[in-house]
Amino acid sequence: MTPVSKDNFGDSKAGQAVSWREGCVVLLDQTALPKQEIFIDCKSTESLIEAIKKLRVRGAPSIGLAGAYGVVLAALEVQEETENKRAEAFDLKLKALQASRPTAVNLSWAVKKLKQVADSWTGYFNLELVEKLLVEAKRIHQENLKYNTQLAILGADLLTEGPVLTVCNTGAIATGGVGTALGIVAKAYELRKVSHVFACETRPLLQGIRLTTWELQKKGIPYTLICDNMAAAVMRKEKIGAVITGADRIAANGDVANKIGTYNLAILAKAHSIPFYVAAPSSTFDLSLAFGDEIPLEERADEEILSVLGENRPSYSIPVWNPSFDLTPQSLISAIICERGVINQPNRERIKEVLTGNQL
Amino acid sequence: MTPVSKDNFGDSKAGQAVSWREGCVVLLDQTALPKQEIFIDCKSTESLIEAIKKLRVRGAPSIGLAGAYGVVLAALEVQEETENKRAEAFDLKLKALQASRPTAVNLSWAVKKLKQVADSWTGYFNLELVEKLLVEAKRIHQENLKYNTQLAILGADLLTEGPVLTVCNTGAIATGGVGTALGIVAKAYELRKVSHVFACETRPLLQGIRLTTWELQKKGIPYTLICDNMAAAVMRKEKIGAVITGADRIAANGDVANKIGTYNLAILAKAHSIPFYVAAPSSTFDLSLAFGDEIPLEERADEEILSVLGENRPSYSIPVWNPSFDLTPQSLISAIICERGVINQPNRERIKEVLTGNQL
Repeated sequence: MTPVSKDNFGDSKAGQAVSWREGCVVLLDQTALPKQEIFIDCKSTESLIEAIKKLRVRGAPSIGLAGAYGVVLAALEVQEETENKRAEAFDLKLKALQASRPTAVNLSWAVKKLKQVADSWTGYFNLELVEKLLVEAKRIHQENLKYNTQLAILGADLLTEGPVLTVCNTGAIATGGVGTALGIVAKAYELRKVSHVFACETRPLLQGIRLTTWELQKKGIPYTLICDNMAAAVMRKEKIGAVITGADRIAANGDVANKIGTYNLAILAKAHSIPFYVAAPSSTFDLSLAFGDEIPLEERADEEILSVLGENRPSYSIPVWNPSFDLTPQSLISAIICERGVINQPNRERIKEVLTGNQL
Repeated sequence: MTPVSKDNFGDSKAGQAVSWREGCVVLLDQTALPKQEIFIDCKSTESLIEAIKKLRVRGAPSIGLAGAYGVVLAALEVQEETENKRAEAFDLKLKALQASRPTAVNLSWAVKKLKQVADSWTGYFNLELVEKLLVEAKRIHQENLKYNTQLAILGADLLTEGPVLTVCNTGAIATGGVGTALGIVAKAYELRKVSHVFACETRPLLQGIRLTTWELQKKGIPYTLICDNMAAAVMRKEKIGAVITGADRIAANGDVANKIGTYNLAILAKAHSIPFYVAAPSSTFDLSLAFGDEIPLEERADEEILSVLGENRPSYSIPVWNPSFDLTPQSLISAIICERGVINQPNRERIKEVLTGNQL
C-alpha cells in the first residue's frame, strides 16, 4: 500500500466519475456533460457536499462512493483539530454528508459502513485511521465494480431480444462500475440481445439527454432519444422487449424509489405487457423500511423546471411541484436484478431470501 | 355589414388569438408567450402558412379559424390575377394552406367549408365572393365561440369536485372561444367544482408551462405546474377528479389524436381509476376515418427537443423521435364532450347518434 500523507493520499483509479487522488475526492462534473468532460477536486467535505447537492456527482451508487471517500476526507480534515475534538468534529461532518441528499440510501449506507470502521478503531484518531478508512472506501469502490459486473450478466441473461426503454442515467458515471440498468443494456448489446435503446430525456434535469446519450454514444450502442411523454407512443409503435431502470432505495417489500417518471413507465409497461425491470446493487435495499411509503422522496427547487423558459420568463411566478423521485409499488415490478440474484415478482420473502444469500 | 375593399375588409373582434382586420389575418403570436403579448399581421397566405407551421397560431380549433380566414386572404390575393386564372390560383393556395399541418382536422374542415361557398358561387371571382367568404369565416368564428360555451357547460356539469389534470393548452387562445378542456375547467371553477389545476408542461414545446399557466394566471384559477413525467406521482398523491384534454382529430370509432403525452395520461388515469375526458367541438370529428390508426400523426424537427440543451450541446448528433401527437384508443376514454352532447364510453354508434343530433 502507498504510504500516506495529507497531500498524497493513495490514489484510486483516475478518470472515473468518482475517485480519490492526493487527499481529495475527484469528481467528473456531470452538470458539464455532454459538452465538456471536466474533473473537479473536492478538497473539503464542504465542497463535496456542495457538489453532491448540485448533482455534479449523481446516481445512487456514485453518490454512495462519493460519500465513502467523503468520510475519508472528513477524517483527514479533522486532523487539524486537537486530538480530543476530532471524533466529535468527524461525526458532525458525517451527519452533514449524509443529509446532503435524502432519497438514495447508498449515501448513508456507505457513510455508515465507514463510520463502523472508525467506531471499532481503538487507536488514536490519526492518519493511521484515515488510511484504514481509505482502504474501506476503496474496498466499497471495488465491490461496486464487481457487483455492477455481476448484475450486468444476470440482467443481460434475463432480457429477451428487442429494443429496451430506459429513463435517467444508470451507466458507469452513475455507479462507479459498468452501470446498473445501462450496464445490463451494454452487456445485452454485446450479446446481440438488445438492438436499440429508447432513452427518455428525463425532465427536469435531462439526465437522459445529457448523460445517457453521452454514454451510449461512447459505447456505440444505437439509441433514440424521446421526451418522457412519448414513452407510451413508443411502446405502441415498437416491440419494446423491456423497460429497465435503476433504483435509489428499495424497501423491504420491494417498493422502489427512483427518478421521477419511473412510476409512470411501470404503469405504461404493464398496460403494454412489457416486463419492467429494476437493477440495483444490494446496498440500494433499505430493509429497515417495511414499505416504500416510508422512503423520503426529495423535492427540489422550482427553478430546475422553470429554467427551461430561458429568456421567455413571464412576469408572474409559476407555482411548481418538483419531486425528484417517485415510488413504484412492487406489484408493477417484474423483477429486481441485484448482484446476488434476480428477484422475480419481488416481495418481502423473496427479497430476504436473495439478500441473505440463500440463493447463491 | 361593413363595405369591403382590399385594404379595409370588415374587422372581426380584435385582441383574440385569431381575428380578421383590414384585409389581413391577425394572430396573437403564441411563441412569444408568456413573456410578451405580440400580435402579428399575416397579409398573405404565404405568411399565414409560415405562422401556422411555426406554431404562432396553434390549437386545433384556432388553426381551423386561421384556415378559414386564410381562405378569405387567398380569395383577396387572387384578385391580382386576371379573372380566368383566379379560381386555379385560389385552389393552389387552399391546398398549401390545408397541408401546413396534417393532424388537426379542423384546418381542412374549415378550408373545405369555405371552399364549398366558393364552389357554389355562380358569379365572377371578385370582391363580392371575398365578402361572401368572409361572412362564412366569421360565421364559423361565431359558431366556435358558441360551441365552446355549450361544451364548457356540458363538461362542467360532468365534473365532480376536486383538482383536475390537463396537458397542452386548450384555452381561449387554442380555440377562438372560451376553450375546450380549459373552458370546461374555467366553468367548473366558476361553479366551485374544480378547485385546482395540475398542468403538465408538455414537452417539447412547453404549451403547458407557456400557455396554460398564462391563461390560468389571467383567470385567477389556482394551479400547479408539473413535468409530464410527474403525472402518475400526482395521481398517487392527490385526489384528482378527472384528467381532461382537447383533441386534434377524432375517428369515427372514438379514437383520439391529440398532443403527445395524451395516450400516457389516459393509461395513467385508468390505472388510478380517474375519469379521462376529451373535449372537442364537432368539427374535430373525422367520420371519414373508421379508426384512429388512419389519422396522420405529425412528426416535427429534432431541434424542438434538442434545443433544451442550450449552450450544453455535445459535438455528436443525438438521434431523436419527435411525434407531436399520439393516439388514444376509445377504450381508455370515459367520455368525449362535444357541443352536441356528452358521448359516454364513445363508440361508433354513440358518436353517430350524438353528431347527427338525435340526442338534442
